[in-house]
Amino acid sequence: MIEVHAFATPNSVKVLIALEELRLPYELKPVNVRRGEQKAEAFLALNSNGKVPVLVDDGFVLTESAAILVHLAEKTGKLLPQHGVGRARVFEQLFFHASGLSPAFGNAGFFKRASPEPQPIAEARFTTEGDRLLGLLDRKLASQSFVTGEEFTIADIAHFGWMWRIAFPGLSLDGRPNLSRWFDTVAARPAVELAIARVEAIVPAA
Amino acid sequence: MIEVHAFATPNSVKVLIALEELRLPYELKPVNVRRGEQKAEAFLALNSNGKVPVLVDDGFVLTESAAILVHLAEKTGKLLPQHGVGRARVFEQLFFHASGLSPAFGNAGFFKRASPEPQPIAEARFTTEGDRLLGLLDRKLASQSFVTGEEFTIADIAHFGWMWRIAFPGLSLDGRPNLSRWFDTVAARPAVELAIARVEAIVPAA
Repeated sequence: MIEVHAFATPNSVKVLIALEELRLPYELKPVNVRRGEQKAEAFLALNSNGKVPVLVDDGFVLTESAAILVHLAEKTGKLLPQHGVGRARVFEQLFFHASGLSPAFGNAGFFKRASPEPQPIAEARFTTEGDRLLGLLDRKLASQSFVTGEEFTIADIAHFGWMWRIAFPGLSLDGRPNLSRWFDTVAARPAVELAIARVEAIVPAA
Repeated sequence: MIEVHAFATPNSVKVLIALEELRLPYELKPVNVRRGEQKAEAFLALNSNGKVPVLVDDGFVLTESAAILVHLAEKTGKLLPQHGVGRARVFEQLFFHASGLSPAFGNAGFFKRASPEPQPIAEARFTTEGDRLLGLLDRKLASQSFVTGEEFTIADIAHFGWMWRIAFPGLSLDGRPNLSRWFDTVAARPAVELAIARVEAIVPAA
């Protein structure tokens, strides 16, 4: 039995998308990060880092959304090539996402929306970096269907999480035609629609 | 033939450590990031993201230091368990490093040393986060020898890169006895000593 502790966040939705793509049944356990539930004692016992998502797979507790994607892909033999260049490209994009795009987007959003006082250099630093990385992805997608080539993989799922929440850092896909086409293609996948519907259903009406 | 385009940086040294641990011969191609050589046209042709390290393995160009670690580990069947919980733990730590520790350390260092004007909230945000993550690692290492258990893996190599440069973000291992013990153990490995000597040898005398 698989449990996912998650909310309607960029990192959470990735795991649900992978589970829906792989047709693995799971139970969704809501963790309302707007109320700080990810810092509550019960949750910290699951992930001392205080972050969603967390996967519990037959009692095995795993954190870090991209590590969960790798685990699910290797468990099923899908969404990640078994060897060769294609496999290395998936890891390259997963780490480009984790170390580059994700912190740029997250920090741009923080300094734009949540900083107790304006920090203009910090806001510009992360916004500029996020936009630069969108440009790199757009150029890559000019000559290929998905972020690592012609196959849809967990690397597309990773990038989709933040593209779905691109309004948070105040960025946009405008002027990025290849990335926009990719986004529309991924968003239209039935598994992606199902995953989004499931995470949005756990957000309480304000 | 393996080429590594690198400098004496936290991410570069990881790749050299892995190559030395695996006893794979390689040619080190210096990219002096203090002079901005990673933004020069010749280098951007190799990595459009303008970052070291880059591995060229028989003509196959791979970026992202952690993706390079995975590639080298899978190529040789070493430093990464083939399956099971141990394997998932390595990916969990690699992504914890890439998405958490590495951006916190890098940004703390930027706002402490390189920001054109002080950004006190930003500096405190990343310094506090870096220190919090050091605490998590220290607690983990209270009950195990290495960051994923009793075996030395590429996850230890990933964390070592930034611990070796912990002065940059103004952080310290003081008061972190388990992490200090781990650091000393890893630093004393002959492969680690060799890798550090090789990257330090390419830094021109100021």
